[in-house]
Amino acid sequence: MVILMEMDASEQQVAEVGRVLSGFGLEARLVGGGRKIMCDAGVAQAPVLDALGRLPGVHRVQRVGRPYVLAGKECAEGNTVVRVGRAAIGSGAVTVIAGPCAVESRDQLLDTARAVAASGAKVLRGGTYKPRTSPYSFQGLEQRGLELLAEAAAATGLATVTEVIDEQSLEAALAHVDMLQIGSRNMQNFHLLRAVGRAGKPVLLKRGMSATIEEWLMAAEYILSAGNEQVVLCERGIRTFETYTRNTLDLSAVSLVKTLSHLPVIVDPSHATGRPELIAPMSRAAVAAGADGIIVEVHVNPKEALCDGKQSLEPAAFAGLMAEVGTVSRALGRAI
Amino acid sequence: MVILMEMDASEQQVAEVGRVLSGFGLEARLVGGGRKIMCDAGVAQAPVLDALGRLPGVHRVQRVGRPYVLAGKECAEGNTVVRVGRAAIGSGAVTVIAGPCAVESRDQLLDTARAVAASGAKVLRGGTYKPRTSPYSFQGLEQRGLELLAEAAAATGLATVTEVIDEQSLEAALAHVDMLQIGSRNMQNFHLLRAVGRAGKPVLLKRGMSATIEEWLMAAEYILSAGNEQVVLCERGIRTFETYTRNTLDLSAVSLVKTLSHLPVIVDPSHATGRPELIAPMSRAAVAAGADGIIVEVHVNPKEALCDGKQSLEPAAFAGLMAEVGTVSRALGRAI
Amino acid sequence: MVILMEMDASEQQVAEVGRVLSGFGLEARLVGGGRKIMCDAGVAQAPVLDALGRLPGVHRVQRVGRPYVLAGKECAEGNTVVRVGRAAIGSGAVTVIAGPCAVESRDQLLDTARAVAASGAKVLRGGTYKPRTSPYSFQGLEQRGLELLAEAAAATGLATVTEVIDEQSLEAALAHVDMLQIGSRNMQNFHLLRAVGRAGKPVLLKRGMSATIEEWLMAAEYILSAGNEQVVLCERGIRTFETYTRNTLDLSAVSLVKTLSHLPVIVDPSHATGRPELIAPMSRAAVAAGADGIIVEVHVNPKEALCDGKQSLEPAAFAGLMAEVGTVSRALGRAI
Amino acid sequence: MVILMEMDASEQQVAEVGRVLSGFGLEARLVGGGRKIMCDAGVAQAPVLDALGRLPGVHRVQRVGRPYVLAGKECAEGNTVVRVGRAAIGSGAVTVIAGPCAVESRDQLLDTARAVAASGAKVLRGGTYKPRTSPYSFQGLEQRGLELLAEAAAATGLATVTEVIDEQSLEAALAHVDMLQIGSRNMQNFHLLRAVGRAGKPVLLKRGMSATIEEWLMAAEYILSAGNEQVVLCERGIRTFETYTRNTLDLSAVSLVKTLSHLPVIVDPSHATGRPELIAPMSRAAVAAGADGIIVEVHVNPKEALCDGKQSLEPAAFAGLMAEVGTVSRALGRAI
Repeated sequence: MVILMEMDASEQQVAEVGRVLSGFGLEARLVGGGRKIMCDAGVAQAPVLDALGRLPGVHRVQRVGRPYVLAGKECAEGNTVVRVGRAAIGSGAVTVIAGPCAVESRDQLLDTARAVAASGAKVLRGGTYKPRTSPYSFQGLEQRGLELLAEAAAATGLATVTEVIDEQSLEAALAHVDMLQIGSRNMQNFHLLRAVGRAGKPVLLKRGMSATIEEWLMAAEYILSAGNEQVVLCERGIRTFETYTRNTLDLSAVSLVKTLSHLPVIVDPSHATGRPELIAPMSRAAVAAGADGIIVEVHVNPKEALCDGKQSLEPAAFAGLMAEVGTVSRALGRAI
Repeated sequence: MVILMEMDASEQQVAEVGRVLSGFGLEARLVGGGRKIMCDAGVAQAPVLDALGRLPGVHRVQRVGRPYVLAGKECAEGNTVVRVGRAAIGSGAVTVIAGPCAVESRDQLLDTARAVAASGAKVLRGGTYKPRTSPYSFQGLEQRGLELLAEAAAATGLATVTEVIDEQSLEAALAHVDMLQIGSRNMQNFHLLRAVGRAGKPVLLKRGMSATIEEWLMAAEYILSAGNEQVVLCERGIRTFETYTRNTLDLSAVSLVKTLSHLPVIVDPSHATGRPELIAPMSRAAVAAGADGIIVEVHVNPKEALCDGKQSLEPAAFAGLMAEVGTVSRALGRAI
Repeated sequence: MVILMEMDASEQQVAEVGRVLSGFGLEARLVGGGRKIMCDAGVAQAPVLDALGRLPGVHRVQRVGRPYVLAGKECAEGNTVVRVGRAAIGSGAVTVIAGPCAVESRDQLLDTARAVAASGAKVLRGGTYKPRTSPYSFQGLEQRGLELLAEAAAATGLATVTEVIDEQSLEAALAHVDMLQIGSRNMQNFHLLRAVGRAGKPVLLKRGMSATIEEWLMAAEYILSAGNEQVVLCERGIRTFETYTRNTLDLSAVSLVKTLSHLPVIVDPSHATGRPELIAPMSRAAVAAGADGIIVEVHVNPKEALCDGKQSLEPAAFAGLMAEVGTVSRALGRAI
Repeated sequence: MVILMEMDASEQQVAEVGRVLSGFGLEARLVGGGRKIMCDAGVAQAPVLDALGRLPGVHRVQRVGRPYVLAGKECAEGNTVVRVGRAAIGSGAVTVIAGPCAVESRDQLLDTARAVAASGAKVLRGGTYKPRTSPYSFQGLEQRGLELLAEAAAATGLATVTEVIDEQSLEAALAHVDMLQIGSRNMQNFHLLRAVGRAGKPVLLKRGMSATIEEWLMAAEYILSAGNEQVVLCERGIRTFETYTRNTLDLSAVSLVKTLSHLPVIVDPSHATGRPELIAPMSRAAVAAGADGIIVEVHVNPKEALCDGKQSLEPAAFAGLMAEVGTVSRALGRAI
């Protein structure tokens, strides 16, 4: 059960709801930061719901059938819109995030940033702290990479997003980027989820590579319950038996999450497929499935990329992709 | 290696190619029915390829890196178009196949057929021999169901497709329907694949529920190598750990198969998702991903369906679906 | 609900149970061949159960919570023992089935048969009709292979098992072998399941490569409900994301099926792992998990095998395997 | 390529190897803490290998075909034995770790600890910082739980292991427990892996729920390359389509890892199956497959457990399990 308080409910009104809940033997809990929502995991009876609904300051009382509460559609008045620079993710427009897998050098980043900005991307991606399967692989430019992202943002007007992997990288990123990414491998790093929940910046939450839809929404719940409502979900492919593609892009998860949650959802066709020839069709399909945007790997020189070059698009291919995505978006009445 | 003979190559020319191959120690084999293609699994050297390419009647000599030969793009002059009634699957237009999971009664089938025809479907689906997980479940109307399909076709102008599960049902279906379906569970029933390969009617080949893309194309290869080139592939979801959806629709497989093979590919969003609210977004996405069509479960009274009622659309919802699919199709310059 | 009749119940007594069920509005159905069991899918109330239990000739009335009835433990008086030659599979002893993937020649088969017999195997395996992913691969010696199996049986005293893939191969096999195998790809070929159900010979039913445990038991139900109670289940690995092994052997399925069903279960470590170095540890583990036996690929000359040579054991390695399996079996008080 | 230096190689000898590598255009890197191993990811030619092998202080030069270096068998002189209290994991003896999912209270923990010690367990498990899917679930007693573990250890002579989930819990655990557990969800939390790599205590590294064997060994490589060689791997089931079991226990991974790596491997049948009736057969099978031990959930009162009660064994059932595991262990010549 969730009790949504009015936006202007007073602390006394909130406390009174708690007292009434105690009277029914239920435990109250404040969640969702300033939204003054209270919840109880128990299943409440109709008289209890009615009594609570009549209390002053209470906007709505809601039974919840799923374990996620704040991430669920029932708990919101409408779809959440997450603003990152000029992008309004979840507003109906299709947001395109693009950039290299990893920030490698000033030239590489600025050239790529200018190219993607020219083609209409709104947000620049670039890994600076890279979670790599091997301890011997390139681990990212770290602080220097963050500074380059900030410089590229200033030069192009793009907003920026980068992955954070621990408290140190989170701390460093806060000063330089507009959005924090939680990668697939950290989707259930609950400590880190709480930390970005407190950080107060928009979060891009990638689905774990074998996470169920429910677990993905529960990961968002961690961030929301820590007080941060600016969460964008990102589907990036799940692990299956197929070997022709790097992962299996689960677009039905995108459509389903749009019915279960008020949070925006975007799609990463680059990591999902690992094949450049599939990025355009999967981007078109993502928009058609209702995704709020896409995040695409672009590199000015894929052959020399330190990371995931094989699946990166060159700027010209990216411009073509934007045109294709635009066609589908406009047909569905959506801006890009 | 595959040697494509000219369409008008003589038997002597074919035999001569065989003799030359023998001289190189290679075994010749005629495949692909009337297409007069010869192949050898071995990897041939450049001088051999050159020598063969200069023989009279030889159109093209092709190395093949994948185990499928006739299903591969290299072996075809262009995309295959499979004609079923008024539908030309693979021609660029989006073909919609619709109808009930199972043929249950005359009224049920004719009412559904009229509804889907009115909304623009070109082919009527309806199970008459049902492969059911339980021996105690409804197994289909069999012969009577086939006759009803034929009656519905006559009444509406729709073509028809039904699943065949063994030689007896295949024999019976040949007299009454326009297209034979091989279901997921039979995708590697090689005996049945060869039988529909000899039957000379268009075949709708569903992907096995955990088949790799390569295995799916190899199943098509069985049909093609038996002499039947009228094969349409159908992606219907693969089995994963996710439980919110019945299966996980693999749209990247659709786009990838379009780059690997000349065969048309359609998508079944009904079985893939098992959720009516996902059928429209997944149909839009399928068309955007490049699918040549969709196959959708429609029932005049889903609540009383003997099979898969939960995921069936009512006629009104199907009409809405057609409008949505039409919007995406037209935006991509495709008829429907 | 299942009603087990006494073994000597008369036809009149069976008919009377049917009449009483009709009186309660329930539909009766005779299943399980001569076992005179009647079942109804509906959930019956206690008074109905009691009334039925008091009828003459009724041995036991049983509610059933799972969709499989005849395969379920509730429907049997004890564990089923399937006799194949000198082997009593399910009796507590550990049965070892061994032999080549495919019968290739007289020498290959007889040499292998003598070797596995000398090491203690009771049943000889050998594919004669091979379901191959590619239509161009070796498809088996067919009739000639069956004759060689019969010759090897006569020469060694081993019983024999071979895979059947359609009615023709089933018909041919009936005359020459002691046990019929249904392969993974045909686990849901319901037509074939019914055919071996009527054939009256022991059946080795392999689990489909991504079949759930319930689907596997439902496949057995098809055979049992056609009147054949001599079914041995075989776990052979499921398909997962792992690529170091050919499949992922699911030994917990073995232990679980032993609690759900009265049917014997054996394990195929050769196909499950695809790696010879894992066959001994997985065989030991299978016996420790409660498997009723193992089926192992052995070839006198693995390097020249036409099929699955990489995972075949040479006779000396097989002898070592038998010693290891014997050690674990004896420790658990089981003969081998 | 890896160069194992002699255990008593001097710093000058190590430096000289680095200089020679530079001369060949290769980059040297010290890894593995005090073991003075140097490696280079490049593939070296035979003359280079020979030249390096002749340098003073060099014990062995080894090409490496897999991406894990320190975790690979080639880099070790024998199997690693990890000592935790009286347990020597990897020595050939079978180590049993047991205890509750979560530490809940003094009585619960001490009663359980005494029971498992009496039955022969050597290490006590108990979660104190719990990574929970829901932010609203019980998150563990934290510091108080660690103190109770230390008290239980003092009272029973058991060693202790608990999961750490971030730097704060790691810091706290170091003072109170003998072994640090990295849970499945953190298997690729590379920051945490490096932190336990520096901590100098034995680490129990659980396999991620859909990690490949290679990724699992690469996670161990992170810990080893940070200087900590005391790593025990733990297989705990992977995620598949099966729903009758919580996960699918992958015992072939255990046997395979024993051939690929020198690190000990244990098995967690409780989380893998989620079913108490499968814990004994899977424990027997684990030992037969070559596992170095098992980790089992035991609770004095499973019905009132705050976490995973359904899959916990009561003390009496655990005593029975120990007897069964002992039987298999002794048969294979292993102590317990």
